[in-house]
Amino acid sequence: MLLNCTAGVASVEALASAAAEDLDGKVLLDVANPLDFSHGMPPTLTIAGDDSLGETLQRTFPQARVVKGLNTVNAHVMVDPARVPGEHVVYLCGNDEAAKGRVEELLRSFGWREIVDLGDISGARGTEGVLPLWVRLMGVLGTADFNFQIRRA
Amino acid sequence: MLLNCTAGVASVEALASAAAEDLDGKVLLDVANPLDFSHGMPPTLTIAGDDSLGETLQRTFPQARVVKGLNTVNAHVMVDPARVPGEHVVYLCGNDEAAKGRVEELLRSFGWREIVDLGDISGARGTEGVLPLWVRLMGVLGTADFNFQIRRA
Repeated sequence: MLLNCTAGVASVEALASAAAEDLDGKVLLDVANPLDFSHGMPPTLTIAGDDSLGETLQRTFPQARVVKGLNTVNAHVMVDPARVPGEHVVYLCGNDEAAKGRVEELLRSFGWREIVDLGDISGARGTEGVLPLWVRLMGVLGTADFNFQIRRA
Repeated sequence: MLLNCTAGVASVEALASAAAEDLDGKVLLDVANPLDFSHGMPPTLTIAGDDSLGETLQRTFPQARVVKGLNTVNAHVMVDPARVPGEHVVYLCGNDEAAKGRVEELLRSFGWREIVDLGDISGARGTEGVLPLWVRLMGVLGTADFNFQIRRA
């Protein structure tokens, strides 16, 4: 399994520097967000609307089995969800069911319990789209150690 | 106070049909989302990245005091947050503090208790950006009566 933990605006270039055979058939867990910080805070999404970074990576590197996940929480919470109380949620999406299963096992090993499968890789439009809110909330809350719990009727 | 409850892709045209004096100085609570359903489900955001519908309305109708709010929940939850259990959240943003105060009063009258002020109207990029996730979650959960509770360390 490969993890894309590069800056989202540089991810295509970074992965293009890998040999094709190093991506071939691999599960690629993409935790990046295509945020442009070059104009200061808050950053803007450089890919949005009818596309996403996750889809861009799957399209550009079709030999990889891209799974989008963990990109809606900060790096500390990614690997230690118990930092945040409550039944807060993490999302997965991707076109390959077996690849999503592999990632789900990894997330459970980190302690994640609320794991929601959003379907194919276009679900990355959903999870990347949370970032503009996330960044503003980080400012309001004064911490990056937060997440969302789904409440339903 | 005016409420923009039109389809987001038609909101500019709808508000342009109002007489200028009917917008002048009014608080305009914008609950709409710029979602394009013309290509089927899920819809895509027609404004995203470095702009939002909320900002577009404020820019197009500078005589109105635009407050973005309630657009992250469905219409039933907007006016009856008790439909969903827990301390789930609603957001406000806008350039006019007094206008936000007026809207906050309205939301409290509906029963909202967790009201987060995201700052100026560019915060609409955050709350509108949630919609691609929201629509997918509606499908996964099988209900539109849900919302998010913020959990923090």
